[in-house]
Amino acid sequence: MLTPGATIGILGGGQLARMLAMAGARLGLKAHIFSPGANEPAFDVCAARTLAEYDDETALKAFAEAVDVITYEFENVPAATAEFLAARRPVRPNPQVLALTQDRLVEKQFVQSLGIETAAFTEVADAGALARGVAKLGRPSILKTRRLGYDGKGQILLQGGADLAVTFRALGGAPCILESFVQFSKEISVVAARGADGAFRAYDVCENVHEHHILATTTTPASIRPETADRAVEIAQKIAQAADYVGVLAVELFVIERAVGPVWEKLVVNEIAPRVHNSGHWTLDGATTSQFEQHMRAVAGWPLGATRRHGRATMRNLIGVDANGWRELLQEDGACVHLYGKSEVRPGRKMGHVTRVTPETP
Amino acid sequence: MLTPGATIGILGGGQLARMLAMAGARLGLKAHIFSPGANEPAFDVCAARTLAEYDDETALKAFAEAVDVITYEFENVPAATAEFLAARRPVRPNPQVLALTQDRLVEKQFVQSLGIETAAFTEVADAGALARGVAKLGRPSILKTRRLGYDGKGQILLQGGADLAVTFRALGGAPCILESFVQFSKEISVVAARGADGAFRAYDVCENVHEHHILATTTTPASIRPETADRAVEIAQKIAQAADYVGVLAVELFVIERAVGPVWEKLVVNEIAPRVHNSGHWTLDGATTSQFEQHMRAVAGWPLGATRRHGRATMRNLIGVDANGWRELLQEDGACVHLYGKSEVRPGRKMGHVTRVTPETP
Repeated sequence: MLTPGATIGILGGGQLARMLAMAGARLGLKAHIFSPGANEPAFDVCAARTLAEYDDETALKAFAEAVDVITYEFENVPAATAEFLAARRPVRPNPQVLALTQDRLVEKQFVQSLGIETAAFTEVADAGALARGVAKLGRPSILKTRRLGYDGKGQILLQGGADLAVTFRALGGAPCILESFVQFSKEISVVAARGADGAFRAYDVCENVHEHHILATTTTPASIRPETADRAVEIAQKIAQAADYVGVLAVELFVIERAVGPVWEKLVVNEIAPRVHNSGHWTLDGATTSQFEQHMRAVAGWPLGATRRHGRATMRNLIGVDANGWRELLQEDGACVHLYGKSEVRPGRKMGHVTRVTPETP
Repeated sequence: MLTPGATIGILGGGQLARMLAMAGARLGLKAHIFSPGANEPAFDVCAARTLAEYDDETALKAFAEAVDVITYEFENVPAATAEFLAARRPVRPNPQVLALTQDRLVEKQFVQSLGIETAAFTEVADAGALARGVAKLGRPSILKTRRLGYDGKGQILLQGGADLAVTFRALGGAPCILESFVQFSKEISVVAARGADGAFRAYDVCENVHEHHILATTTTPASIRPETADRAVEIAQKIAQAADYVGVLAVELFVIERAVGPVWEKLVVNEIAPRVHNSGHWTLDGATTSQFEQHMRAVAGWPLGATRRHGRATMRNLIGVDANGWRELLQEDGACVHLYGKSEVRPGRKMGHVTRVTPETP
């Protein structure tokens, strides 16, 4: 258990690290940011910074010696970096979680091994395996690289007629996974935390809308049946326990609804994010404890905070030029505006977000 | 009007500057902290820092050139410093406000000139004037230095029998003001903001309890009559307008209650704080826009944010060894814990605060 004044090292310097650093500071914890990128958003709000590559062992060693515990803002921290650091300081969540979530195939196998449903999938090592996979799963299906995809990058939707050899080459011939296309009615996520003592606390389930493969809005609570929400939280808890997880994680799920016959909602796990998550940003303005503070509490070995909502929360991402609307947003009564301090506006780049919290209508 | 990415210079590096810097960062604003003290709490959360004395003109010049607008976390910034900087960059609130609030005599005269009631007072330049003042105002009365007092420092309560010459010398022979002792039933404060465009927004009135002359707890809303609350806010607005104020200010008032006869509550202004204020810390967890964000918005020339409460808020300061109770506080469901990152615990030192927000009971 850390004491106030301790330093938490954070790998990555983007907006998640920025909000983690500030949440830690609220609690009297110092943040030391390690990132290869100059002008990182998190550099503006931290007690110490290291600008170095993830394979710079001299810098990693000095970083480890300067901090008390280490966490990360993204799941693509190189495994070798995490292991190098874990030999010197506690890394939370543990590096095995990185190995698990960096590979879509391993992640899906892990989830299924817990008795939790995912989309049907099959490993695709070459074009021949892709043909066999499509024969098995049918179309539409989605070919994804096993590693390094995010925001829709590294994936291709296979509809009728697509040339499989061309498709496989389009992803660079990288090891892939083929997933059957899930006809979902809603995308939801569970943002939850597990403490070093095994305590588990989830926020109310979030409902997410993506545009161009990037999260556009999150509304909490999700408009799903109470028993579906309970089941989603149970799934997240099962995953967190099985991974001996410490920190905040997000589990993204599809809700499959049947309109005809007795109404039911089925859940299928889409992805695990071993970190604070965009769909939890509303907690900064809409919950007693933000997901960022919750993560820092867990990483520090401290008790988890309350996850109560102040009302119904809607978070909208400010993507690319959306951020140019900051004047109007600041004028809007009750809009909680967050800008990440990124100097350059680029298409698809997350520049900020805005959260609106309104009283619950029972 | 600043644009996101601009830098706000802050004079002072204590917890108020720390919370201002973080609130600015939420909005994509960078903070540059100027302070003579090493290990300042705000140094851990800012984009740039200058460690220099307030009369170091080389440092002040470089600071002014590095920032877009300047504000301060405390009213005792030397007047010469403020003027030197104001010749180079906008200083908000304007330095005249500092002159006004640094001198208790000038401040009280200003308030009275607006037709707002204060305690009866008289100037005390020497021991002879003190004797005349006591003859006029009676006892108990309070002798205060005109400048540099805070948290009960620089003031002496004159009760029956005190030797006046000794009392005057006890305050170092500094220019003083004698105030009649106000028999108040409650201490309240109005935390409010005025924008660069003259817009004015107040939070609900706070009720404060002091222990050993230091703020112990603030509860919002104050348990006063609605018309008293309205009058308190009107007073704050009148003061802000007359001072052409830009930023957050706090007006501390005494409520005088008459138990016998028709019930009434009279208001007397005690003090003006030209800055974010300890009695507004609850807004971090209990209001749509925190006082810190509100101040940064005003200083940036941006629209003010909504001041709505999420519920009934109680803030308790963690003074000195109180902060050693952090483990218990972190365990308490719904307690929002703030620690200021001060390494050394000293008696009377503000180490942090905790806010509890509970649903309003109508």
